[in-house]
Amino acid sequence: MIMRLKEIQKSRDFFSRTLDLTVVMPVVEGIIAEIKTQGDEALRAYTEKFDGVSLKEIEVKQDEIEAAKRNLDSDTLRCIKEASTAIRKFHYRQKRVAWLDEFAEGVFIGEKYMPFDVVGAYVPASYFSTALMCVIPAKIAGVHDIVVCTPPGTDGNVDPYTLVAADLAGATRIFKVGGAQAIAALAFGTETIPKVQKIVGPGNVYVTVAKMLVRDEGVEIDFPAGPSEILIIGDGTANPAFIAADMLAQAEHGAKSKAILVTDSERLAAEVEQKIKAEAGSQNWIIIGDSMNECIDFANEYAPEHLEIMVREPMDVLKQIRNAGSVFVGNYSPVAAGDYATGANHVLPTAGYARLFSGLDVDHFMHRMTVQWLDKAGLEKIKDVVVKLCKVEGMEKHARSIEVRFSSDSSD
Amino acid sequence: MIMRLKEIQKSRDFFSRTLDLTVVMPVVEGIIAEIKTQGDEALRAYTEKFDGVSLKEIEVKQDEIEAAKRNLDSDTLRCIKEASTAIRKFHYRQKRVAWLDEFAEGVFIGEKYMPFDVVGAYVPASYFSTALMCVIPAKIAGVHDIVVCTPPGTDGNVDPYTLVAADLAGATRIFKVGGAQAIAALAFGTETIPKVQKIVGPGNVYVTVAKMLVRDEGVEIDFPAGPSEILIIGDGTANPAFIAADMLAQAEHGAKSKAILVTDSERLAAEVEQKIKAEAGSQNWIIIGDSMNECIDFANEYAPEHLEIMVREPMDVLKQIRNAGSVFVGNYSPVAAGDYATGANHVLPTAGYARLFSGLDVDHFMHRMTVQWLDKAGLEKIKDVVVKLCKVEGMEKHARSIEVRFSSDSSD
Repeated sequence: MIMRLKEIQKSRDFFSRTLDLTVVMPVVEGIIAEIKTQGDEALRAYTEKFDGVSLKEIEVKQDEIEAAKRNLDSDTLRCIKEASTAIRKFHYRQKRVAWLDEFAEGVFIGEKYMPFDVVGAYVPASYFSTALMCVIPAKIAGVHDIVVCTPPGTDGNVDPYTLVAADLAGATRIFKVGGAQAIAALAFGTETIPKVQKIVGPGNVYVTVAKMLVRDEGVEIDFPAGPSEILIIGDGTANPAFIAADMLAQAEHGAKSKAILVTDSERLAAEVEQKIKAEAGSQNWIIIGDSMNECIDFANEYAPEHLEIMVREPMDVLKQIRNAGSVFVGNYSPVAAGDYATGANHVLPTAGYARLFSGLDVDHFMHRMTVQWLDKAGLEKIKDVVVKLCKVEGMEKHARSIEVRFSSDSSD
Repeated sequence: MIMRLKEIQKSRDFFSRTLDLTVVMPVVEGIIAEIKTQGDEALRAYTEKFDGVSLKEIEVKQDEIEAAKRNLDSDTLRCIKEASTAIRKFHYRQKRVAWLDEFAEGVFIGEKYMPFDVVGAYVPASYFSTALMCVIPAKIAGVHDIVVCTPPGTDGNVDPYTLVAADLAGATRIFKVGGAQAIAALAFGTETIPKVQKIVGPGNVYVTVAKMLVRDEGVEIDFPAGPSEILIIGDGTANPAFIAADMLAQAEHGAKSKAILVTDSERLAAEVEQKIKAEAGSQNWIIIGDSMNECIDFANEYAPEHLEIMVREPMDVLKQIRNAGSVFVGNYSPVAAGDYATGANHVLPTAGYARLFSGLDVDHFMHRMTVQWLDKAGLEKIKDVVVKLCKVEGMEKHARSIEVRFSSDSSD
């Protein structure tokens, strides 16, 4: 469906795409309350109800992982390992290291980064690539316990690719639970599942609501997740076949996924429409703007999860991008490549959250502290400023704590 | 009061210090609901109720700022400027810049950092130093609109030092409102106050509860704030006069502030107690551990806002610190120096939140996006891995979006 950008802009709904969480809220509140008070018993009951299986064991055992590895064909294993290596390389590059600089003579200040002790990763059923994306950055950050929850099939088993991927990536323990009940278990702990400090990973609306609710009780989360989406900025030089293929790929994430082309080229719009119309659902939009600047402004306002730039000078457009989860530049950077194997993370903010949140990265698994180290000469140099400002703010004893270090009766 | 660490460890309450927010919750919910629906009118009513003043103007005007500057004595102005310079230097060092590396031939991936568009800084009455600490990192991040809210006095004026500091630091607009009503106004906007994307800065329990509630509605916050606190690790080489002065300074933040010395030296414990007992309130604790390692473990579990290390080899202890807001190393690094003029930020996580959150820094005002740029050869190199993994995950059209770029009928 081709529309004019001017028409779209009259419709605030198109931009806002606020997640409607109110419908599932009471259900999720009930699940959380039960897991919190009844632990594993409630976890088993919900797994029976939602996943259709009565679990013998909640935790995946080492021999299940070994069996999954043995049964995996060697070519798939090689590909998972190659993707892991690329993801590891990129995320190592992100990791920040402690530093301490001398900002004035004798005044050293710096930062120290520390991993969380224990985190939870939620992996939707059979998304083994998401297991890599959640666990590898946690491992590189240095997180000690990386707990994975992923829903079981009706046979009580977890997808073997997910097992192998999570294990290769460095997961410490893997549990066969999914949905809001998994999030509640990670947030509060059960007899079997340890309580974590932070929960990451995408999920459906139940999982997202559960993450938002447990955040109020002191468990951090990466960010709320909505349906996956792509926005493509294209001009008259773009290849319509590439754009059509990338838009159609997006639809594989489900009926709520949106694919949007925004272009200043009537011809490109028509050609892409021609290619997708046979398969297009309501999730595909082609929008024509009066100028490339108008298209870029729209992209920034929309803040898409995935943004592809297919124009004559893509780097010029990249410079103007302010809000997106990940930006794919040029004709040979399809989202699918980044979903699996470039090394970048595919767990990204959706639903406009890219204005506020950053995609999953090593930083998500660490906290920072500042380090301040002054020698006597350094403190002496800033003494007058500190004492003066303490007194202006009415902090006499703060001032005294500086002065005592230079008074003859108490210094060492 | 001197205690044994073994005794303390039996008391879980001492460690947990969970903020009790339930009492003020209904009050704050009421305030938020009214500001949301009635805007400035409700804001004026609450300011009259809580601050005892009927405001003519909610916004500080430029001539009030100019008057504050004219009336400021030149020495105080010089000290504020020197502190600002130090804060600016440290925070510039924190700022991250975009990068793009070639991880494999033709596969370039990197990160781009973008500031938020509009943020709010809450500055408690007369804490001009907090205005510097909140506004300077936002300015360095590149935030376009930096909105400051700070409570007025009963004369309807804002502390002139705060005005000057906020203006020097780069605040865009300053409003004479405080408390939960200020947080609600920043979160939802009123006729006068713009809606912001993120709210930072410390405040009392009403402010903290308001921040936690608006976070549920999509406005980010830095972190919840509790009473200020210091924990000092000292050994037999530490100077008891310095430790006593730093503990007593902490009490200036109010009756709920805690100051804790943890030491393996009976002598140090006795000497510090001697020095503080004349002035000590219930907020001072001296704790004796069996060994330095036990003291360090306690500090990590407590996760204090401010941690001072006064031992023979402080860098050895620093290496073992995992959780703290800011660490002050050695005898000449009192918290007061960092509160005002070393350059580090004094807006730090309290109440054990240092296990999860990082103190205010430039990162708080930016979000990150990844950038992925492959040339045709780069994509070709990873093509087989991507296509294989797409298919294993059942994403046939994702695979097709790769293959189309190498098929003869559609490539450019």
